[in-house]
Amino acid sequence: MSMELTTRTLVRVRFSDVDSMGVVWHGHYIRYFEDGREDFGNRHNINYLDFHSRGYLIPVVKIDCNYRRPLIYGDTAVVETRFVDTEAAKIRYDYTIFNERTNEVVATGSSTQVFLNLNHELLLAFPPFFLEWKKKNGFMTGLT
Amino acid sequence: MSMELTTRTLVRVRFSDVDSMGVVWHGHYIRYFEDGREDFGNRHNINYLDFHSRGYLIPVVKIDCNYRRPLIYGDTAVVETRFVDTEAAKIRYDYTIFNERTNEVVATGSSTQVFLNLNHELLLAFPPFFLEWKKKNGFMTGLT
Amino acid sequence: MSMELTTRTLVRVRFSDVDSMGVVWHGHYIRYFEDGREDFGNRHNINYLDFHSRGYLIPVVKIDCNYRRPLIYGDTAVVETRFVDTEAAKIRYDYTIFNERTNEVVATGSSTQVFLNLNHELLLAFPPFFLEWKKKNGFMTGLT
Amino acid sequence: MSMELTTRTLVRVRFSDVDSMGVVWHGHYIRYFEDGREDFGNRHNINYLDFHSRGYLIPVVKIDCNYRRPLIYGDTAVVETRFVDTEAAKIRYDYTIFNERTNEVVATGSSTQVFLNLNHELLLAFPPFFLEWKKKNGFMTGLT
Repeated sequence: MSMELTTRTLVRVRFSDVDSMGVVWHGHYIRYFEDGREDFGNRHNINYLDFHSRGYLIPVVKIDCNYRRPLIYGDTAVVETRFVDTEAAKIRYDYTIFNERTNEVVATGSSTQVFLNLNHELLLAFPPFFLEWKKKNGFMTGLT
Repeated sequence: MSMELTTRTLVRVRFSDVDSMGVVWHGHYIRYFEDGREDFGNRHNINYLDFHSRGYLIPVVKIDCNYRRPLIYGDTAVVETRFVDTEAAKIRYDYTIFNERTNEVVATGSSTQVFLNLNHELLLAFPPFFLEWKKKNGFMTGLT
Repeated sequence: MSMELTTRTLVRVRFSDVDSMGVVWHGHYIRYFEDGREDFGNRHNINYLDFHSRGYLIPVVKIDCNYRRPLIYGDTAVVETRFVDTEAAKIRYDYTIFNERTNEVVATGSSTQVFLNLNHELLLAFPPFFLEWKKKNGFMTGLT
Repeated sequence: MSMELTTRTLVRVRFSDVDSMGVVWHGHYIRYFEDGREDFGNRHNINYLDFHSRGYLIPVVKIDCNYRRPLIYGDTAVVETRFVDTEAAKIRYDYTIFNERTNEVVATGSSTQVFLNLNHELLLAFPPFFLEWKKKNGFMTGLT
């Protein structure tokens, strides 16, 4: 069985996002990814605060982004955020950013987060509440 | 007696600071002011951490900026930060930003900070160590 | 007769907007003001591109902000943007930012923009299309 | 023969770079990479403006970053930028960011840029002046 959990988030390009070449500066896509990730977390009850209130921090440890087409001022980005099931105790999301106007893919990328306790120690196993969340949503990888 | 305490801080304009009009986006000057203020604080032992370690927070409560000339990519800003003595329990700095290349004034502005304790309660009197600092540096306004 | 033209714009606080004190860093409010100003411009047909397509640039020459209460992660800011009629050839907006959750005022401020032609020369009179816009919307200051 | 061309660039962590977890927000490392890349370009005469004045744009098409340790307020990052020779018509840099205080590696990553002409068309061959630069610096990959 193949599971997919995906959200689509609209992000308006700000005037201050655009560089002197007239296109969104590449570093801002990391923020658009975060907009998508936060929206996913809010809708599916696994946002930053859901983890923090249970005693976990979830820092990003890896990010990558491939740029295909530019976004310009006036555009709206559609960030598609997809939860990717992993064996290891991590949270992985894949992102596809579309131009709402043209429907073309403008960028793809991914992020990986790990679990720390509030003493900033790395956890090698999934937090119990997150295992519950995975099961409830049909993700079984890494569960025994 | 007229006292002045001033620092000069170099800030290189980043590619990502420049907007689609080819000039530094106006909001980034607030960051340049902070660069100047932090540099002042580091050199004169009243930076953010000096306050924090003694139990005080110093949030900004007022900011203003007047823009005279643009800065472009490749420019270096010279932020002149001047401590302004006040009667009330506040920290006020005035800023003048110059273009290092032309020596022209590109912007002026000011910031005002107040003192909170770690419970985020506003303090109506200067913290004792800061009164000491003022005396030591010849600023007597608000001292009895 | 007293005229008012006001828009209300929602701005979600991003994780990356919040500083180590747990509140929105003061410089980001300049961006929230711009979000309000752009939204006003889009709804009332005087946005940046409306000016640019007619041969005008409208750089910000003055900004100020008073901070009353903090915004935290998870909050949504409501930016109320009000067009302020002026005699001189300028565009002035006043801003009030509310916390959507508590309805409290968190900040107030204003911005002033001037008109440049595409040679970056300052214009001392209102562009004709903007005078039309003012008349149409009932603002008569500075019109003869 | 193994060639290496590397620069080391100091980047001071700004107060506004630090998030509510007390560490530099992960997206800002993309800016630190750019600081390193620009410094490399300035010292070795292949910065953004060197390309632009000859009719080339060099947009970033790929970025990745691995986060190992946090940076905190008061830290200074040392960005080591290394030019990586490529066969294809691209510019690739590898980055290692150290904490100046501890000398520990805090992040690694890379960026890839392509060449566009001023009509924004992708070039499949290296610009002649950049081939000259490569030869002069002992990089022979992709040259015939």
